[in-house]
Amino acid sequence: MSGSIYGNIFRIATWGESHGTGIGVVVDGCPAGLPLDESIIQPYLDRRKPGQTLYATPRKEEDKVIIQSGIFEGRTTGTPISIVIYNENHQSRDYSEIAKYYRPGHADYTFDQKYGFRDYRGGGRSSGRETTGRVAAGAIALAILKELGIKVNAYTKSIGPITISEQELQLEQAKLSPLYMPNLDASKKAEEYLLGLKNEQDSAGGIVECIVEGMPTGIGEPVFDKLDAALAKAIMSIGAVKGVEIGDGFQTTTKSGSENNDSFYCDSDGNIKKSSNHAGGISGGISDGSNIILRAAIKPTSSISRKQHTVNKDKENIEIEIGGRHDPVIVPRAVVVVEAMVAITLVDYLFVGMTSRMEWIKNFYRK
Amino acid sequence: MSGSIYGNIFRIATWGESHGTGIGVVVDGCPAGLPLDESIIQPYLDRRKPGQTLYATPRKEEDKVIIQSGIFEGRTTGTPISIVIYNENHQSRDYSEIAKYYRPGHADYTFDQKYGFRDYRGGGRSSGRETTGRVAAGAIALAILKELGIKVNAYTKSIGPITISEQELQLEQAKLSPLYMPNLDASKKAEEYLLGLKNEQDSAGGIVECIVEGMPTGIGEPVFDKLDAALAKAIMSIGAVKGVEIGDGFQTTTKSGSENNDSFYCDSDGNIKKSSNHAGGISGGISDGSNIILRAAIKPTSSISRKQHTVNKDKENIEIEIGGRHDPVIVPRAVVVVEAMVAITLVDYLFVGMTSRMEWIKNFYRK
Amino acid sequence: MSGSIYGNIFRIATWGESHGTGIGVVVDGCPAGLPLDESIIQPYLDRRKPGQTLYATPRKEEDKVIIQSGIFEGRTTGTPISIVIYNENHQSRDYSEIAKYYRPGHADYTFDQKYGFRDYRGGGRSSGRETTGRVAAGAIALAILKELGIKVNAYTKSIGPITISEQELQLEQAKLSPLYMPNLDASKKAEEYLLGLKNEQDSAGGIVECIVEGMPTGIGEPVFDKLDAALAKAIMSIGAVKGVEIGDGFQTTTKSGSENNDSFYCDSDGNIKKSSNHAGGISGGISDGSNIILRAAIKPTSSISRKQHTVNKDKENIEIEIGGRHDPVIVPRAVVVVEAMVAITLVDYLFVGMTSRMEWIKNFYRK
Amino acid sequence: MSGSIYGNIFRIATWGESHGTGIGVVVDGCPAGLPLDESIIQPYLDRRKPGQTLYATPRKEEDKVIIQSGIFEGRTTGTPISIVIYNENHQSRDYSEIAKYYRPGHADYTFDQKYGFRDYRGGGRSSGRETTGRVAAGAIALAILKELGIKVNAYTKSIGPITISEQELQLEQAKLSPLYMPNLDASKKAEEYLLGLKNEQDSAGGIVECIVEGMPTGIGEPVFDKLDAALAKAIMSIGAVKGVEIGDGFQTTTKSGSENNDSFYCDSDGNIKKSSNHAGGISGGISDGSNIILRAAIKPTSSISRKQHTVNKDKENIEIEIGGRHDPVIVPRAVVVVEAMVAITLVDYLFVGMTSRMEWIKNFYRK
Repeated sequence: MSGSIYGNIFRIATWGESHGTGIGVVVDGCPAGLPLDESIIQPYLDRRKPGQTLYATPRKEEDKVIIQSGIFEGRTTGTPISIVIYNENHQSRDYSEIAKYYRPGHADYTFDQKYGFRDYRGGGRSSGRETTGRVAAGAIALAILKELGIKVNAYTKSIGPITISEQELQLEQAKLSPLYMPNLDASKKAEEYLLGLKNEQDSAGGIVECIVEGMPTGIGEPVFDKLDAALAKAIMSIGAVKGVEIGDGFQTTTKSGSENNDSFYCDSDGNIKKSSNHAGGISGGISDGSNIILRAAIKPTSSISRKQHTVNKDKENIEIEIGGRHDPVIVPRAVVVVEAMVAITLVDYLFVGMTSRMEWIKNFYRK
Repeated sequence: MSGSIYGNIFRIATWGESHGTGIGVVVDGCPAGLPLDESIIQPYLDRRKPGQTLYATPRKEEDKVIIQSGIFEGRTTGTPISIVIYNENHQSRDYSEIAKYYRPGHADYTFDQKYGFRDYRGGGRSSGRETTGRVAAGAIALAILKELGIKVNAYTKSIGPITISEQELQLEQAKLSPLYMPNLDASKKAEEYLLGLKNEQDSAGGIVECIVEGMPTGIGEPVFDKLDAALAKAIMSIGAVKGVEIGDGFQTTTKSGSENNDSFYCDSDGNIKKSSNHAGGISGGISDGSNIILRAAIKPTSSISRKQHTVNKDKENIEIEIGGRHDPVIVPRAVVVVEAMVAITLVDYLFVGMTSRMEWIKNFYRK
Repeated sequence: MSGSIYGNIFRIATWGESHGTGIGVVVDGCPAGLPLDESIIQPYLDRRKPGQTLYATPRKEEDKVIIQSGIFEGRTTGTPISIVIYNENHQSRDYSEIAKYYRPGHADYTFDQKYGFRDYRGGGRSSGRETTGRVAAGAIALAILKELGIKVNAYTKSIGPITISEQELQLEQAKLSPLYMPNLDASKKAEEYLLGLKNEQDSAGGIVECIVEGMPTGIGEPVFDKLDAALAKAIMSIGAVKGVEIGDGFQTTTKSGSENNDSFYCDSDGNIKKSSNHAGGISGGISDGSNIILRAAIKPTSSISRKQHTVNKDKENIEIEIGGRHDPVIVPRAVVVVEAMVAITLVDYLFVGMTSRMEWIKNFYRK
Repeated sequence: MSGSIYGNIFRIATWGESHGTGIGVVVDGCPAGLPLDESIIQPYLDRRKPGQTLYATPRKEEDKVIIQSGIFEGRTTGTPISIVIYNENHQSRDYSEIAKYYRPGHADYTFDQKYGFRDYRGGGRSSGRETTGRVAAGAIALAILKELGIKVNAYTKSIGPITISEQELQLEQAKLSPLYMPNLDASKKAEEYLLGLKNEQDSAGGIVECIVEGMPTGIGEPVFDKLDAALAKAIMSIGAVKGVEIGDGFQTTTKSGSENNDSFYCDSDGNIKKSSNHAGGISGGISDGSNIILRAAIKPTSSISRKQHTVNKDKENIEIEIGGRHDPVIVPRAVVVVEAMVAITLVDYLFVGMTSRMEWIKNFYRK
């Protein structure tokens, strides 16, 4: 269990290192009959791609999606979908120096402790490049959700101290912001903040927020497989994420019960609704039909050019300056990864949720 | 998959409702030869028990542990350990009123949406009483960790706005505080805060913090089964938890990389250490040998006596006042549940971690 | 992973030893709304119960089913169903002798090798009594199948050399036979055969055959989770089973392709059917709509009173005569266990099978 | 869950169709430090390859192994190993005819029933070519077993009615036989038998036997995850397998207990041994240290050129003659697939087995 397989019914297995042949994913359990080809997946990978703005590494990665199985005449067949994205120029650089010491904030040391050695080229399997496979699988999950009328939208909620309040949210502006921030004023301030850090060879973190619209009620399993528990794992499994919140999250801890409880009411069409959504769309681990809202705390990029203290393989205390160009912030690139992980998890739980009632199963099989 | 089974190698299956026969757990995958009897488990259940202070429900629950299998001559046999805690006085009350409407903040509505109906007596399976099974299994996991020299300690970090800073932490005071707060001054203030809310028939939330000492390096699997991802699921699966953080968590988002990175150094004994622990003991999803630190955000108790708006089964908008005595805060009782879920998860990942290197497997089998 | 949890969506966890408190099972993932109470489960346990005929041990075991959770107002709630069957008189006997040596054919030696020691009282967890939990869970699975119009019938196909050919099968006679053999002539011969062995303090094996009627097409997953593969595991996991066949099984190895292939034809109602069923209802791992047919080879009872050679704990070569009364054959009692394991597996795969097509999922969620 | 992922700790995910881009497998959970490159895997694929003898299809398939991840400097890194074998000339043929009807003995009909349509080119995912991925993963498992001193050897035990008794076994002759039969006389007879069937445009089945030497005691989990149960699933999941036996299998059903029980004795070196091995190396689901012996019943090849009856898509009853060259027998090619599935299963259970005793875990972590 190297931990690269995820899901119960809709399952994915990812593979690949930063500087190996490529990155790939096998999607097992995708239902048959879903229209799918490379053009549906590619846009998501383009969003993850580095080098698009000042605030991301200018490395050139094409990240061209190739589907290798599971599709016939433009539709999924129900059998595993293998996707590969070949790495380009992956043998270009000299990693002999990086091999000798442990970069602070990276998994170099823990990989060595776990496995005895590591593929040090560009971080190997612990590189952010690993998320490419998640995004490709996420694109398929998002295509399934689209068929069911469910939308998943993530964006940059904050960069360092610059944050967007709920009132300032203007979702349509996210795509116009180089930082994927849905408020262009805040985005401008964040850009200035980042330039300052960049000049100091330093980096920033931030928060990604994700909203799911159109979610049916009744999804998620009580006790251990609560929908929010599953989403928490999904999000926390993304490298650099250090915290996850659902709904009002940590803010609920300073509210009173009467402030935090969402009241129910029945609207004029006879639909049961909630007058607020502090819970973030999930109650008792089960979706309540309102929007699912969650947030991921993303730490500042570990790779910085500044002088840092660390230890080398000979156990000498040394000072290092990590060469190369680094993302001063990875938050904007993480947005699509959050969407992917949320989508993959929702699809899996939607599938599991079809068997909650005997009546539904009878209707299905006695048709 | 009603979601009541948890784990990979060390697995638990819980069952039981608030007002049914009892609560139970089956622990599958406990190694043979661990000294175990009821007296080792009972103290953990006593900590979870209500009615101990002013700030918890005065209901009388004995919560007596009975081990039904898997033990022989005082030691575990390697086969499933079944534990039951019978409910007492479980048929005493009239729930006909509560059956008719959806309590705000509770899972009444989502259970009905998922299953078509629900066991409404005391919340049924969605009651906090469900955690009894987790705590019993957690006691076994904690006994295993003890054998390995690993300690898990959780406590109340904050109640509402009253919080304890790292400097104010005095762990030994937790047990003296009726709120399990490791600082008696803060505890006093929190008690006053709670009394105020109680008088207003309202409730409070708070934060539980958990520290793991003695954790070996190399535990956790990269990518989806990161140790922090697994812990996030474990913690978020506890009812009322709305957020999880590892290490500096959400605070890292406003720090710079140079502030947040933990530097490595080699001490005079030749051991590699970190000069800080912003990461909370986990890097790249793998334990780094320093303390694991995590926090759970717990929302204010949903059950309040105050007047609230909701909807009844006839889809009428109504006002309710929920009778009975309610915990004005559940944070102190959640402390032991957090310890339990952390311990269960660590044991599972420690077991999985034994196969990371071919050399270790060879040493084991070619002995 | 002590291996006592089974299934993907419909999952069961069993526990208990021959001479402990009792035997139990937790069923996780049973859909809500299934009518269920003890009276539905009890008859299956009565069929498994020993002491009913000359050919089974005359021990008195009541095996009274108690449901402890997951039921409300006569129907399943969707949450875990805990069932316990308490052992009676379980402290009556002296097992000090049996503790000292390894009984041939039993798991005494392998348990000691695996766990370092064992609960030797009546075989502990490796006793046939373990199947009680399977049968209780199987009764629930059979109730689900009944709702879907699917019937599972097993019976004794052979005892030692006395076997019933397909032509001699008279299913309604099984219940009249003390050996559950669906042909009373064969049953008589088998009884004589058993009496002979019994007089020699010896034992017999035999074959259980199981037929599933009303199975929908399309159930089972290609590649590793073929329906026949899952059934093979289910059946082989029953103690004393040494072989499993689907359809014509081992006989197909001496047939030619033209003899063994099942031809398709279209009947006058426009339904596609097969003109034979050598495949036993499963093709490519997926149900084809015809009856599923499988067989389990059950070895002769290991417990015999005859003198046998073995080794004791002091590694001395010794001769033993195992006291007590033993089943001269366990085949008739295994019949209901086979039904149970088949039913549990089918329910699990029927649930998984609901997500094979995007169209079905859309119909379900866009209702 | 399209069923293409297998295993608990050592897990594999396969993908690919007969006439798509290629076949692949991702191995997740391979320990770090195992020497591995393509040259270690290729020989196993060469054994599976068709076109080597008269008795296998003369199609030219190169089946060249390419490792894409998980290896660094000649050793496994502990991260997923992705392997691909590209298909050659996969667009050469016209499958328009085969698309229109259901071939008897194949999964055409069941795939259509499950998924609504199918990739009919060469059988798509249900083609025997799917086993290529299993064999590649199996080669890695066999490399791990080799490090542990465990050998897995399978061979053709029978072809049609021509079978090799235990006395006639001459293992070293298997590689000299074009049918992988470990007795050249029997092999000759079987060749004649096959030629006869070939002339009649018909096909044959047979039995593969597999022997595992050097297996440690104590592997396998009691109850559902018995080692023989896991092996039964592994073997039955191979297309065309209709039965599985462990040890004396179906023959035990006609033996008495005194004949079938394996007696223990202690040899002069103080080692506990068995005087016979009717059990096939597994008792109570746990390995007993003697050789594991199992057999797979393989049905005659479904693809035959003879005239057969079937139904087309317009539900017309038709006669067909399937063109192309077909294997008159697939048993010899299945030998390496059986070895692969056995090896993958054993590795997984050996890994799980490391946590059976608390003492072992303590020794490991308190080192």
